[in-house]
Amino acid sequence: MPERLGPPLAEPLFERLVIVGLGLIGSSLARAAKRLNLARTLVAADASPAVRARVAELGLADVVAETAAEAARGADYLILCVPVGACGSVAAEMGQALAPGAIVSDVGSVKGSVVAQVQPQLPAGVHFVPAHPVAGTEHSGPDAGFATLFHNRWCILTPPEGTDPAAVARVRAFWEKLGSNVETMTPQHHDLVLAITSHVPHLIAYNIVGTAADLEEVTQSEVIKFSAGGFRDFTRIAASDPTMWRDVFLNNKDAVLEMLGRFNEDLSALQRAIRWGDGETLFNLFTRTRAIRRGIIDIGQETPEPDFGRRKAD
Amino acid sequence: MPERLGPPLAEPLFERLVIVGLGLIGSSLARAAKRLNLARTLVAADASPAVRARVAELGLADVVAETAAEAARGADYLILCVPVGACGSVAAEMGQALAPGAIVSDVGSVKGSVVAQVQPQLPAGVHFVPAHPVAGTEHSGPDAGFATLFHNRWCILTPPEGTDPAAVARVRAFWEKLGSNVETMTPQHHDLVLAITSHVPHLIAYNIVGTAADLEEVTQSEVIKFSAGGFRDFTRIAASDPTMWRDVFLNNKDAVLEMLGRFNEDLSALQRAIRWGDGETLFNLFTRTRAIRRGIIDIGQETPEPDFGRRKAD
Repeated sequence: MPERLGPPLAEPLFERLVIVGLGLIGSSLARAAKRLNLARTLVAADASPAVRARVAELGLADVVAETAAEAARGADYLILCVPVGACGSVAAEMGQALAPGAIVSDVGSVKGSVVAQVQPQLPAGVHFVPAHPVAGTEHSGPDAGFATLFHNRWCILTPPEGTDPAAVARVRAFWEKLGSNVETMTPQHHDLVLAITSHVPHLIAYNIVGTAADLEEVTQSEVIKFSAGGFRDFTRIAASDPTMWRDVFLNNKDAVLEMLGRFNEDLSALQRAIRWGDGETLFNLFTRTRAIRRGIIDIGQETPEPDFGRRKAD
Repeated sequence: MPERLGPPLAEPLFERLVIVGLGLIGSSLARAAKRLNLARTLVAADASPAVRARVAELGLADVVAETAAEAARGADYLILCVPVGACGSVAAEMGQALAPGAIVSDVGSVKGSVVAQVQPQLPAGVHFVPAHPVAGTEHSGPDAGFATLFHNRWCILTPPEGTDPAAVARVRAFWEKLGSNVETMTPQHHDLVLAITSHVPHLIAYNIVGTAADLEEVTQSEVIKFSAGGFRDFTRIAASDPTMWRDVFLNNKDAVLEMLGRFNEDLSALQRAIRWGDGETLFNLFTRTRAIRRGIIDIGQETPEPDFGRRKAD
């Protein structure tokens, strides 16, 4: 297994890196950028005074700016790490402060909507290279981040047609230095892929936890006590940031509804199999799905330890 | 945190413990029973010659019997660890070989059906104390078991009305020695609780992995690559033993269909909220569900580490 993060760069990749939004992702980027000397100056901006104070306290950045517009001045690379519903207004706020040649990127879990909201706000000559690091935990805020979050994860870039290839290459190099594998695709395809690999999984996790919480004949205490039979796995995803996820669903509606439709059709078929005692249909599905986990472990996107390796921490 | 398993007992709890079915659960019981000297003699029985050979190779038991009937002779405590669909036939096979005063138990994830299948097969004077340890991993077979599997987990006993309290107490003591907390309830209530905390979670995990595998516009390679955004969590449960889970659904139909019905109603409401851009409904649910994970961690039924503590193994 290679070294987690490389040594600090002798020459930084950027002069002035601005991170707008210091939650889990933004604060992880800040930590990694500092550790690797990816930028000569690191500027953090956040709408929340409490977050700004904490960022300063933690020493996560060289400069803590009160507004995105203030932060953007002189930036050669600015990354939006705010909920996707806020990307448009932040871009409107700071777009004009950017000089030609500056690169704007983001980390949002939806891409079509972000491109539509952000691109019109950016002046000519500013390069927009949307990104999405497929990484995270269920925790939030500037304390939750860590420098190795992106190590061995995939980062998807969705540069709109006509984006300057040199700018794309610089963003790719940035993510590769963070230890990520980089892949490029259209915003539309991204949104479809993520609808099934991330958005609908989150929705059904949120849903089942809600359904369990609302039962009358089974108490919340029983649900919690006996959660080790499967339920507890779902509660982690259902503990994810409510703001971020609300915005994801509001901004990837079509792809999510499409995937949810398929999920529902397939679930109805299983429900029917159960009602009619069709063991063969159940057995065949349960056998098929075993192989997929093997695939994920084999490409290094999951720990091979049983039970996610929980026992160590248990 | 207390010592995982206590020291071996000076005096074993049972003379002749028989474990029928040496999968994950059975082989974990065998390992724990040996380590703790819970029985003077440990007998293993399994229908599969390959499993019997492996059990012998691993030295998991003192005696490896070819049939349950052979194994049951002279047993004072016999635990059925076979798929719940097989409990009835195993009980039919070996019931008459049991002497009065013997205790029969099981580990099945459904209880009503097991009681209905097993109890009629047992002679008068044999005590039947159904059990369900809410514990497991996604792995199968005699190699998958480990002695500490039941440590700090809940074991639910569902003794039918009129069961000898002394027999129930002995089974309770057995599970407590394995490190489990023991709770008693009716088979019907058990099946309702487990339908929501385990069975429906497994069903929807199996379902979403199947749905993802069947897409045309998103390749299996993409699903696997970008699985760290949530999907991979589901694949663990969807890698669970197909035989065991087929039998669970076939044997807990009513409770599963009831809980699935509620799940579907709630999911439709979410789907509607997404279609109509109702961010408030989404945000409120996502906020509510965060607290439930906290509850599970607080009672020690989940690791507090972010991301299930995967990073250590990553």
